[in-house]
Amino acid sequence: MRANRKMAQKKGWSFMDKGPQLNRMKELFNPGSVAVIGASDKPDKLGFHVMKSLTRGGYAGRIFPVNPGAGEIMGLRAFPSVSACNGCVDLAIVVVPANRAPDVFRECAAAGVKGIVLITAGFKEIDDPGGGRIHSEIAAIANDAGIPVIGPNTFGMINLLADLNASFTPEFSLVRKGSIALVSQSGGISHLLGFMAMRMDLGFRMIVGLGNRLNVDFAEMVAFLADDPDTRVIVLYIEGIDDAAAFVNAARNVMGRKPILAYKTGTGRVGDAASRSHTGSLAGRHAIYTASFAQAGILTMDTTETLLDAAKALSAAPLPAGPGVAVLSGQAGPSMAACDVCEAEGLDIIRFAPRTQETINRLLPPLALRTNPVDMGPAWYDAAAIKGIIQTVMDDGNVDGILLLMMFASANRDAVSGISGLLKSWRQRKPLISCIVSPPGIWDEAIRGLEASGALVNFPTPERAAQAMVNLWRFRKMRQEAPAAQ
Amino acid sequence: MRANRKMAQKKGWSFMDKGPQLNRMKELFNPGSVAVIGASDKPDKLGFHVMKSLTRGGYAGRIFPVNPGAGEIMGLRAFPSVSACNGCVDLAIVVVPANRAPDVFRECAAAGVKGIVLITAGFKEIDDPGGGRIHSEIAAIANDAGIPVIGPNTFGMINLLADLNASFTPEFSLVRKGSIALVSQSGGISHLLGFMAMRMDLGFRMIVGLGNRLNVDFAEMVAFLADDPDTRVIVLYIEGIDDAAAFVNAARNVMGRKPILAYKTGTGRVGDAASRSHTGSLAGRHAIYTASFAQAGILTMDTTETLLDAAKALSAAPLPAGPGVAVLSGQAGPSMAACDVCEAEGLDIIRFAPRTQETINRLLPPLALRTNPVDMGPAWYDAAAIKGIIQTVMDDGNVDGILLLMMFASANRDAVSGISGLLKSWRQRKPLISCIVSPPGIWDEAIRGLEASGALVNFPTPERAAQAMVNLWRFRKMRQEAPAAQ
Repeated sequence: MRANRKMAQKKGWSFMDKGPQLNRMKELFNPGSVAVIGASDKPDKLGFHVMKSLTRGGYAGRIFPVNPGAGEIMGLRAFPSVSACNGCVDLAIVVVPANRAPDVFRECAAAGVKGIVLITAGFKEIDDPGGGRIHSEIAAIANDAGIPVIGPNTFGMINLLADLNASFTPEFSLVRKGSIALVSQSGGISHLLGFMAMRMDLGFRMIVGLGNRLNVDFAEMVAFLADDPDTRVIVLYIEGIDDAAAFVNAARNVMGRKPILAYKTGTGRVGDAASRSHTGSLAGRHAIYTASFAQAGILTMDTTETLLDAAKALSAAPLPAGPGVAVLSGQAGPSMAACDVCEAEGLDIIRFAPRTQETINRLLPPLALRTNPVDMGPAWYDAAAIKGIIQTVMDDGNVDGILLLMMFASANRDAVSGISGLLKSWRQRKPLISCIVSPPGIWDEAIRGLEASGALVNFPTPERAAQAMVNLWRFRKMRQEAPAAQ
Repeated sequence: MRANRKMAQKKGWSFMDKGPQLNRMKELFNPGSVAVIGASDKPDKLGFHVMKSLTRGGYAGRIFPVNPGAGEIMGLRAFPSVSACNGCVDLAIVVVPANRAPDVFRECAAAGVKGIVLITAGFKEIDDPGGGRIHSEIAAIANDAGIPVIGPNTFGMINLLADLNASFTPEFSLVRKGSIALVSQSGGISHLLGFMAMRMDLGFRMIVGLGNRLNVDFAEMVAFLADDPDTRVIVLYIEGIDDAAAFVNAARNVMGRKPILAYKTGTGRVGDAASRSHTGSLAGRHAIYTASFAQAGILTMDTTETLLDAAKALSAAPLPAGPGVAVLSGQAGPSMAACDVCEAEGLDIIRFAPRTQETINRLLPPLALRTNPVDMGPAWYDAAAIKGIIQTVMDDGNVDGILLLMMFASANRDAVSGISGLLKSWRQRKPLISCIVSPPGIWDEAIRGLEASGALVNFPTPERAAQAMVNLWRFRKMRQEAPAAQ
């Protein structure tokens, strides 16, 4: 069975010339029409939820529900088979049982389908060798026909910019549109990150659940996203990779052009074993993974939260030119928490240029911390002083990035509106990462406005803000050190 | 100046017998009446915000605004001095300038005031030696009169259970009442943690900003909270401690009785220097701190987020009897992320008892992960199966704690309500830490209900849920290993 799988992969479309491969990926993610093979109007069927995702997600192309037993599904005429759709189907979303997949794939190939999302589970991840045989069979059909396949054993994929929700979770359409592309080996982690993004108001460009990776693996996705003009940050959740060399090569080609962030689980004994049975891949050897990731310029992250925080910063902030950070804080404590993270992770809490320091000394009373970090607290009542401090630090050539930390107090309620104009007009000429926090509902709207205008990128704790700045610098540094070929 | 301070401390009321000291602390935090010395009706004065905190926070005792120039403040008759209040003042909140503090303190002592919150800044934290002199002067007055003082250089303190908001931030009254007591050396961090608590719906028993610690330091607070029946978890934010021995002794006395969690910043060069000037204490030597913390049974935390997560778990979950954890998940990926954290931090992903495993094998199809961790995904449509799995794992003697991870999908919308009855009736006979996440608004209310009923403690990511379980075990293990004298 292992040999079978290897062979199927060798024949895979991913070894075709790069040009046509990328075109087929584009077609897969941007179909003019979609068929749901196994569409249903029964809420206990996945085919029901997929139809809901497509119809409610705002997809503008034609939708073909395919189900031989139905006349109409969700107000749309149903078709008995994909062949009956008269060659009009670009993308087929397949939710029929595993044993029917080979016939469906043959039909799709014959009908000129350009891409398949195979949601069905029960292939090589199960103990029954029959699952592996079907996997090989449909891989051969897809590869011969040059059809890229997302799945099997996946929730699907969502191209948010195209309003295409080809998944069994209609709620993914609630994720804001953005420039972060998520490619994940786990449906659970994809859902988690999607819901976290909703709660963080973070925008995604697409969400792709690779599942068992019939012929679209991390390597193919990275190559595709590297050239995708709408993708600014590539985010990967990895459990195990079959063809590590192909992946590392693909990543190396992107090195320095776009950040690739990877969160790989399975560091322990249990995760290792679970990954093997979960997606049928050879996981394990965590250290080997992270070493080759580093060589390929991939930034590894160690939690879902850090992963999204880094993606948020890299999608919305410029890169610092160097490791020199200024910490401006409305209160001393948060600045210490931020400085600890910066210093532990290779950023420098730099010394200000003499002119900057003179200005700050003029604007702050002697009872404040006036060197870096700067405790602006004693000047909270003086909007002009606060603005003067921020402005002089922005202009300081020693400063590569600014951390701005402000906690609400009743007496400083107007502090955010007082500096909004300055921050908006400056538009992060250097990265401006903030942790501005208030009781719910007081500053939230103002912060969203500042983020939307590109004035800053905000995080809920000083440590997470500092860590985001660290990750901006990690990417910049990696890019500096990348081979000249880039 | 150093010698002066030392002397003032040696004379301090904290060296009195334990009994009266604790009584005075009780009086400080539970006054029958409060005077605001420096009360104001001008929003640009701290005395305005303190008055707002007191009057809007629901405080039931009498409030005396003290301001010689005012007739009435916020509808309350103003008094020209604390002496004019006829000996009726239990607690004085002082917001007059530093140079007026000695006179005010003498008046308070003469008027029989039982406790002082000194919000004013500008004492020993400033470069001017005059600040240090005033500090010593008022310390002597307070110590001679046996008056415990919170501050100077603090936002104040909030006894949430008494509806007493003695701070310049009225919004602190929005924090839910609970059993976590926060004692902090930074106003900024206190505000941050308070706002985080509001957003996490976490309940606090009190929030105390120690400031420059005239005569109430961490040692006194820990001793008081150790005996406070309403405090279940003691949370400390520390920058530097003057009298480390007193603190360690106080903590050692609590060892194993109540968890003490400490987050100490100033690990780097900058934080060290900042701490010195910020609160006038000898910070630094981070390694020495953490070593003595460990010996005193204090659990050190490394971020504000981990600190609150651990406090949440310890305030609401029972302790695990051992390190054996079961991971039950609706999807495989999140369980791997959780297992990685557990394994790295000393928890065991145990093997189930044979009977448990047989039951699970009966309830799950072979295409699931059925040993620990358990991927319950394939049984999502079968509420009885899910309940059967959870029940058998609850009953397994090998299992000391359960991690329950569930991501929403359109098809499992009823999953939470399906298990609510079981979880509520079980009432965490072992710790049940969960990461149950949905798009905003779908499961949030149900999760809050489960938390309120004591059925589980929920966290927003699998890693944070696992880390909370780790911290429950850290406390239990420390307690087991604590000297028999406890």
